Parts: sequence; C-alpha cells; structure tokens
Amino acid sequence: MASYLHQIQSPTDLKRLNNNEKYLLAEEIREFLLEKVSKTGGHLASNLGVVELTIALHSSFNTFHDKVVWDVGHQCYVHKILTGRRDDFDSLRQYGGLSGFPKCHESIHDHFNTGHSATSISAALGMATARDFKKDFYHVAAIIGDGALTGGMAFEALNHAGQAGTDFTVILNDNEMSIAENVGGLSNYLTRIRSFPVYSRLKEDLESFIGSFPVLGKSVYRTAEKAKDSIKYFFVPGVLFEELGFTYIGPIDGHSIEDVTEVLNLAKRIKGPKVVHVLTVKGKGYHMAEKYPAKFHGISSFDVITGKKHKPSVKDFSSVAGKALEKLAEKDERVMAITAAMPDGTGLNDFKDRYPNRIFDVGIAEQHAVTFAAGQATAGLRPFFAVYSSFLQRAYDQLIHDVALQNLPVTFLVDRAGLVGNDGETHHGVFDISCLSAVPGLTIMSPSDENELTAMIQHTMTLDGPSLIRYPRGEAFTLSSEHTPIKTGKGRVLQEYGHDFVLIALGSLNRLGLEILENAKELGILGTLIDPRFVKPLDQELLLEYGKLSETIIVMEENQKIGGLGSLIQHAFNEHDLMKKVSIFALADQFTEQGDMNSLYEQAGFSVKTIINHIQHANDKKSAKVVSIKQDERKKHEKKAY
Amino acid sequence: MASYLHQIQSPTDLKRLNNNEKYLLAEEIREFLLEKVSKTGGHLASNLGVVELTIALHSSFNTFHDKVVWDVGHQCYVHKILTGRRDDFDSLRQYGGLSGFPKCHESIHDHFNTGHSATSISAALGMATARDFKKDFYHVAAIIGDGALTGGMAFEALNHAGQAGTDFTVILNDNEMSIAENVGGLSNYLTRIRSFPVYSRLKEDLESFIGSFPVLGKSVYRTAEKAKDSIKYFFVPGVLFEELGFTYIGPIDGHSIEDVTEVLNLAKRIKGPKVVHVLTVKGKGYHMAEKYPAKFHGISSFDVITGKKHKPSVKDFSSVAGKALEKLAEKDERVMAITAAMPDGTGLNDFKDRYPNRIFDVGIAEQHAVTFAAGQATAGLRPFFAVYSSFLQRAYDQLIHDVALQNLPVTFLVDRAGLVGNDGETHHGVFDISCLSAVPGLTIMSPSDENELTAMIQHTMTLDGPSLIRYPRGEAFTLSSEHTPIKTGKGRVLQEYGHDFVLIALGSLNRLGLEILENAKELGILGTLIDPRFVKPLDQELLLEYGKLSETIIVMEENQKIGGLGSLIQHAFNEHDLMKKVSIFALADQFTEQGDMNSLYEQAGFSVKTIINHIQHANDKKSAKVVSIKQDERKKHEKKAY
Repeated sequence: MASYLHQIQSPTDLKRLNNNEKYLLAEEIREFLLEKVSKTGGHLASNLGVVELTIALHSSFNTFHDKVVWDVGHQCYVHKILTGRRDDFDSLRQYGGLSGFPKCHESIHDHFNTGHSATSISAALGMATARDFKKDFYHVAAIIGDGALTGGMAFEALNHAGQAGTDFTVILNDNEMSIAENVGGLSNYLTRIRSFPVYSRLKEDLESFIGSFPVLGKSVYRTAEKAKDSIKYFFVPGVLFEELGFTYIGPIDGHSIEDVTEVLNLAKRIKGPKVVHVLTVKGKGYHMAEKYPAKFHGISSFDVITGKKHKPSVKDFSSVAGKALEKLAEKDERVMAITAAMPDGTGLNDFKDRYPNRIFDVGIAEQHAVTFAAGQATAGLRPFFAVYSSFLQRAYDQLIHDVALQNLPVTFLVDRAGLVGNDGETHHGVFDISCLSAVPGLTIMSPSDENELTAMIQHTMTLDGPSLIRYPRGEAFTLSSEHTPIKTGKGRVLQEYGHDFVLIALGSLNRLGLEILENAKELGILGTLIDPRFVKPLDQELLLEYGKLSETIIVMEENQKIGGLGSLIQHAFNEHDLMKKVSIFALADQFTEQGDMNSLYEQAGFSVKTIINHIQHANDKKSAKVVSIKQDERKKHEKKAY
Repeated sequence: MASYLHQIQSPTDLKRLNNNEKYLLAEEIREFLLEKVSKTGGHLASNLGVVELTIALHSSFNTFHDKVVWDVGHQCYVHKILTGRRDDFDSLRQYGGLSGFPKCHESIHDHFNTGHSATSISAALGMATARDFKKDFYHVAAIIGDGALTGGMAFEALNHAGQAGTDFTVILNDNEMSIAENVGGLSNYLTRIRSFPVYSRLKEDLESFIGSFPVLGKSVYRTAEKAKDSIKYFFVPGVLFEELGFTYIGPIDGHSIEDVTEVLNLAKRIKGPKVVHVLTVKGKGYHMAEKYPAKFHGISSFDVITGKKHKPSVKDFSSVAGKALEKLAEKDERVMAITAAMPDGTGLNDFKDRYPNRIFDVGIAEQHAVTFAAGQATAGLRPFFAVYSSFLQRAYDQLIHDVALQNLPVTFLVDRAGLVGNDGETHHGVFDISCLSAVPGLTIMSPSDENELTAMIQHTMTLDGPSLIRYPRGEAFTLSSEHTPIKTGKGRVLQEYGHDFVLIALGSLNRLGLEILENAKELGILGTLIDPRFVKPLDQELLLEYGKLSETIIVMEENQKIGGLGSLIQHAFNEHDLMKKVSIFALADQFTEQGDMNSLYEQAGFSVKTIINHIQHANDKKSAKVVSIKQDERKKHEKKAY
C-alpha cells in the first residue's frame, strides 16, 4: 500500500495529490495521530476533527507566503505533520521537543504563536492591515473554534474588522464544543445555523451569482441584500456576522476536502472580511474520541483499543478544591462556583452534578466571569471563580476594578499556579504573585498540601473581602497530618532543627523543603522550614523573627523571581530595617519552556542538591568570614604579644 | 416659577410629578448641570444626554430595592441629583467630595461601583442570578452606551445571559458616540437600526400583541418569529441581540420620558433578558455640547456662554507623545498608531489628521488592540499603542502572551501613569510597574520631562522587542536643556551635590527631586538626584555605585509601593549583597481616592517638606548611632584608663 503521508515533506507536496489521494492521506494522518498521541499524550480530539480542514487549507492557501493564525493552537498537529515536522512527533510536548502549539521558531509555516483563546482574529487583522499598508500580496486567515469565539476579544476583533473592511478570512471551526460542551447565546445561534441547508447545496446559485462580477465588491451579500431584501436571512444564515460587516459563507461540511477547498478559494476572491463557517466533528474517526470529546481533548498516554489512560487518573489539587467547595456549599447556601468553560479542568464536575443551579459556566470569558462574580457578591452570595493562573491574567483589570475596589468577598481558586509542564510557555502560572500582590485588600494564600488547600477554602468564608488561593497542577498529597488552624496573615514553622539556614518555601514546594531539611541534617546542617501560607498579608512577625536567627535565608517559589514572594520578603525586611541577604530560588527573568516537571524543576534550581550546595557555599563563606575575623583578632593579639 | 428640582430629595418624590412637570424638571436639571459642571469640571455631554432617560428610569424602577448598574458611570450625575446628592455638587470630583462615578458608599441608590467600560452587563447578570437563587424579588438593569458595547466583556456577558435566560434589562443608551466617534461593525449596525421606525409607532401593535399573553414567555419575539418568519427582521430590528437570546425592544426616543418609562415597564413584564434600545443625543440641550460632544465629554471648568475653558489648554504629555510619534512616522514608514477609542485623550488627533491610514481606532477594546499590534509587528510594522495605564490593565494577558512571548517590537505609550486627580480610584495608573516589571523582555521607561519622552519614543526604534513608556497626566515641562542620549538600561545623575542622601526619583517626580535637592542644600544637606530612566532593565551599576556612597537612600515613584521601582531596587541591592536601607515614597497599600494633585501628592508624601524631614530624621539617627558608637569606644578607653 502506497503511503501518502511519507510523500509529504512540505505543503507543496500536497498539491500533487488528487482528491481521492487526499482522503487516503487523511486516513493515514488519523492513524499517525492516534499512534503518536496515544504514546506522548497531547491534544487529540481537536486534531482529529480538523484533518480534512487542514488538508483543504493547505490546498487553498500557500503558507510559504500566505499567513494563517491558529486560535488557541492545540489543533495544529495536522498542520505540523504537513509542514515537515512529522518526524518530530515522538518528542511532542517533551522537554526540548516539538511544541503542542504553533511556534514561529519551529517553522516558516507558523506565523503567530498561540496558546490562549480568542487571539487569532486580532492577530490576523493586524497582519492583513500591515500587508495592505505595505502593498504586499498574500492571504491571511484565522482559524477559530466556536468555543474560542465566546472570548470577548474575538468579538472586539470582529467589530473592528467589520468596519475596517480589510481582506482576510475567519475560518470558524464549529464543532459545538469548547473543551467541555459549549455554552452561551452564540452557541445556540450557531446550532440554529446548522439546520440551514449546507453550503454545497447552495453552491451553484452562489457561483453563478458570483461569476457575474469580474472583481467582487465589498461583499457579494451586500449586493444580494439590496436585491433580495427580506429573504436575505434565509439565503444567508450568518446574519450575526453579516450585521457586523463580514461576508458569511456556510455552513460547510468540514470533512469534505473539496467543499472546504473550494469555499476557501472562493473566499480569497471576495473582497473584505469573510467568515467561512465549517462544521466539524471533534474526535472524528476515532470512536472513543467522538464519544468522549472532552476526555480526549487533552490526554496523557492511553491505549488506543480501550481508550484507557496508561496511568490511572490520580486525585489532583483541582479535585481536592472541587470537593472542598462542594462541602462548603453543603453547609452554606451562599456558595457558588464559576468556571470559564473548564468545569472538568478545575475539578468542578462533581459540584456540577450535585449543585447544577449553583455553578455558572460562562464560556471562555474570564473577564465577564470576574465581574459576574462581583455582581453576585454585591447581592449577598459567596462566589468562587476556579480558573487557571495563566488565564486569570485575562481578568487582571476586573479583579482590581470590580472586585478589590469594592472589597467584595469573591474567592479566586487559582489552579495551575506555578509550572504546568508540557503545555509550556503560555500556560505556566508564574505571574500571579507579581501582578496580584500589589492589589489592595486581596488576601493571597498558597497551601503546602491538600489538607491546607481544603482548610484555606474554608477559611475564605471568614474573610470580608476578596481572596485568592494558588495551588499547582498535579497530584495532591498530604505533607503532615497535624492541622494548625489557618489564621489570616499567619504562617507556620513546619520543621525546626536549627538555624544554620532558614528555608521559606511557598505552597507545595514545602514537600521539597522537608526533603532538603532532612538531607541537610544528615550532613550536620540544621535548618528551619517555614510555610508562610499567606503571600498577602505576609506574616512579617514570623519572618522577621526567623530572619534574625539565621544568616542563610532562602526562599523557594514557583513564580517569576521579579515581584514574587522572595521580593516581598526582601521588601519587608528592608522596611523593618532587617538588612539580611535573602536568596531567592524562583523562575528567572525569561519565559520557561515546556517539559516534564522534573526537568523544569531541575532547571529552576528546585532540587535538594542545588539548594544544599547553596547552603553549604553560603555557610562556607560565612565560616571563612568568621575565620578571617578570628585570624585578624589573633594577629592583633600576636602583635600585642610581641 | 415653581422649582421642581428642589422638591426632589429622593426618587420617591419623582413619582408625585406628572409628565409635564417631569419635562420641566428635566430643564431644571440641565440648567443645574451646566451651572455646576461649568464650575467644577466633569463629564457634561454624556449627562446632558441622559436627563430624560434617568428620570424615566427612576419613574419605572424603584432603586430602593431594584438594582441599576451604570456602565462606565460618568453619566450618573442626573441619577445623583435625583437620589439626594444635589447639594454635594459643589464638591464634585474634589478631594473628599462627591465622586463623578457611582459609589455604593455614597448612597443606597448606587448598587455597583464603575469607572471602566463594559462591566455593567456582567455585574447586573451576577445580581440577577443571585436574586433568583435567593428567591428575592427585584428588577435589575444595566445601562450601557453603544461605545462601551464594543468592549469584549460586554459581549461575553450578552453571550452568557442569552443562554441563561435570566430576567434583567440591558438599557442600550445609543448616542452614536464613545468619547470620540464610535467605530466598528456594531456601530454601523446600530446606525442601520436607527433608520427603522421608532418604537412609539409600533407601540400599539406590540401592546395588543403582548396583551394577549397573561405572563409572557421567554421572548415575545420568539413567538413572533414562528408566526412571522422572514418579516421578523423588519418587525424587530435588533436581530443581533435576538440571535444571542435577548428580547429586543426599540429603538426608542430617549428624550421622550413617557415612551422610555412605558417601555421599561413593559420590559419588566417580559421574562428573560431584554435589550431596550434608547436613542439619545450626547450633549442634548446645550448647543455647544451637542456640536462638540467629544470636547464636552470630560471638561475642566468653562464659560457657559462661549463654551471656552477657563484655563486654556496646555501642552500636556499626551500631546508631546503624539507629536513625537508623528515625527517618527515622518521618518519611518513602519510606524503605526493604535488607540482604543481615545485618539483625543492620548494626543493622537494631529497624527490622525496627518496619517489617517496609519492610525487604527479599534473601539473600547484594549485586548484586541494589543494582539492586533502584535499581528502588525509580525508583518514588519512598528505599532505604538497609546493607552491609559489603568486601561492597559485590561490587556495584561495579551501583553504577556501575544507580544512579550514572541518578543515583538510593539511599543506601549502608557499615558496617565501615576495619579490622575479627579477621576479617582478607578483611573489612577498605579499598578503598571507592579504587574509589568515581571514580564520577560519588556523594556520599561519613564521620562523625567518632555524632552526625555520624545527621546524615549525615538529610542524604542532601536529595540528589537517590546517596550513601554509611562508618563503622567498633565502639563508637560522641561527639566533641563541638556540631552544625555538614551541608552537601554542606563540611568543618569541629574544633580550631585554630595552624598548625605541619594534620591532616586521616577519620571516626572524628578522635578520635585530637584526642588528637594536645592532646599536640602540650603539646609546644608548635600544630596544626589538620580533619574533611573529605565525601570527595566534597571541600571544596577549606577544604583549600586551610589547606593554604596550614602547611608540615606530614598526612592520616589507614583506607583503602588508593593512591586514598584523601590521594591525592584531593594531586590537588586539584596541580589548584589548590598545590605542597605532603601526608603520608598510610593502609594500605600490601599486605593487612592480622587482629588486635586496637590492634595494627593501631599497625602502620598511627595513633598519637599516630608522628604527633607525624612532625610533629617534618618541622618539624625545615623549621627546618633555614630555618637553612641563613639561613646561606647570612649567608655572602653575609660575602662582601660582605670
């Protein structure tokens, strides 16, 4: 059997295949994706859904000069396969390996890096306006899912583009899903469109109509509008896009390579902004993924036959948070959960089953989520917004302006705080302390283990104002069975062997902190481990007390070094005239790449060896200093003796 | 002549007036507004536009229990007049006085604090869901302008509300304006709606139709839709809102008190989310404001007859930035300007006149603006996004994710950085250093005067990655005529009399810094003033050098103290083992209220007196220490002497 996949080293090779061969290629790609992703893990369902769409895209567009922006970007695997990166798939999402997202440094066929939702239309419009100003000639397209379209900035971009009239194409990849099922009025609207006759049936009419113009005007439908008046809305289902100034074409069967290719070719000939509405099935061609698209959205390695993950699911911090919130809701009627399209990722599925009318999935809309929570809080509820740290960056202003300024009791359950591993640069949650510690009145906590997470979630109910709990991705664990109660602004001493060094570890890094303490002890170096619990308000009393006791003070935190906990402690010491060196182990002033957590921890210096080396070196320097002082004194005595 | 205005101490009093009397009241309110705002300054045009709308709102809603959210909120003056705050208008926007925005602490009739755009629908939906869950009974409304509707989070909220089906009313106050003229596809769409017959002409049909239902279903128009099919879009112009799941009513003449009251009453009877589309004229009733609504949007005190400001417009930092950008554009074809609906406020009007195809007004859409700029930069342009510091908070994620991660040469001209005066809490630009200094690869500058601002704008062209220049609101000035060239990461010594103290002042605070140096000198205290120029990269070499020379080191900056320049310097000293006290004068860990700049500066400690007192006190302590050490030594000698 001829392999078409191996003939494709670049999109140019695709042009040699006929339609039938392209479908065979599509099948090979699906097999390849299943084989590779089942081993490495990664985003599967979304990529299976866009196999034909991506082949059609590369059949119509020439990405050597045409520019394509993949929204979110986790659906770019097929694109990577077709653009010379097939052989790199064994390293997918690994340390030093192929990224699971578009990366301009990997290929000239990647034109914009993505990772977060709803950026593609803005970026594509920027490129298209640049092209027009520079009088270049190339086509620009954004590929965006119906889920990402619920992000407000996508609408901002549509609104701008609709008036600007710039030539470019928005390919709406409509699979009726975000990661979870889609929500919102827009989703309902798109569902209604789906009941319209699909494009292929209207094709002939359209083409004869379009054929009658040598160069097409701003919008063929604008012309149609004048001619056909009220029947417009049956001729063109995409009234919402039309009203914003776009030409709408669709809906189209996204698994028909020839239809999609043809419509994209058509779109290139129409002036102005276009929306091409493509219907796809998430997980297409792999029955397990079609049936459970959310499960196979992003998945670790699994068995292709059974669909079971190789490593069984473990209890992670997300599910601990979800469970704690459920218990809180049981006791207190005011407790509400809010998610921005991630009930699963943030551990809220059980909460959803149990309290369907107390959880609000607002779509991929972090800004709205925060102000919505503020609204609920003014009306006497206690809303909890569970969100990944890197996505909360979207709602920085709302957190300040709508929550903190009114001192409202909204709690942010900040999941995936710290390094996240394979998703890489765009998904590490390493800016939250830097940006949020300056917000007046915001209480910021970080639990050292799952018990503390539960206790902190309960503790938020005692607060009158906003609070935030940051906890990491990954398996939950218990550090110690003792439960010192949570008090606002109070840390705790986790272990105190001596004061050769004082280690202040944030959150789950206390586990490593204990290891360091034990290992150091074996070397005869006796230290103390402090779990500050609160980043804000900082337990200055405790920190100053122990800061005075030792000459070797170390802070460990999964946050950028600039503006992190260590900086806050240096600041506090300085303010209180304690002039002590504080050594910070945190993330250097650069973006941290993807990789397994061990590699990333090693790189950041979060290891027993690195920290103990640091302590020994620091103590050696001190001893050296002590020795040299003693020597000086001895010399003085010697002088006197003479 | 009877004064109706003086009869209104609370909205209850309004209910006693008949329609005719309400119109007379409206006239009195307009006179009152003109009289007061022409003296205090403030937002005039938007308030003149909503006089009848606000009277109608209070005629229909009972804000003792019904909840109303004013989007942006600068159009709430009439509301304040009607809710017992008329007598406070002499203190409008003054230190300790009446706020120009809704403030819950001022009145039980204010239900949500606002200031930034597009938050109202989210907040109102949050309240309405809380009401339903708690089984309370009250009505909820959001009043939002057509400008604010271009903000993405408004769309996020519409999308959520459309599916949630929650009872509440969005009052779309459509005056065809943001602060400047509106832009975007949505604006064009609303303009098309304006040509539909206004509500009053359709009223009878509607009412007979609505009267036929005892309790109205989810949407009366959903029913109509089924019945009337394709003519729906003529019957109901608001198809965009309808498709999202809202019931649309309008357009309505917003200056007809009876029509608006009636429609609001109608809306209260319809189940689910409603949009009431009201047409108003910005500046209504004052010919100067009708003619120049942008000028009379936010204005300082002026002469009512001539419309001229009492204080003539001065050259401010915004216009210096605009002029510098214009010059840059002259030399370099790649230079583009981007604004989020504020070409005037950010000093870009001349640029706009001169290079209409090189400025992009994207609507009130900061998120989109940043990613749009990133798109332009990938295609070889040099975009400059001019934006107020507090509004840039909206695009924190996009700055990190789309600009910095790709190291794109986008420049942020961050206007209104630092304290802004009368707009108060929501508008001070005091978080930018705290949140942005942690962003890898971002160059952050702050000019000490207008020459430096111009030089820094030019300097950005030498950078390969993203950069940011923060400069204050207010009158531009020249500090010194000498021009040391800008070098990345290099500060400068502005004055060096001695090392009794080292003062490091950020940006325009260097003017105060020079004053302090001169005043101290007269007292025989000789200091050095350092203008660091760069917040990132920090000139560590220079700072360490001078840090070593003095025991009294002071930092002054208009940013929150936490995570500001002072903290960065403390951090740098600690990292370099320079254990020196650094005293920071910055904004305390609380929100700073409104007021004239002198009062706010005084409060923050930015004054010659406060800083010199601090220096004297610090030096006294040092001398005391020196003395006590000497005494100790003397005692030792004395002991020996015995």
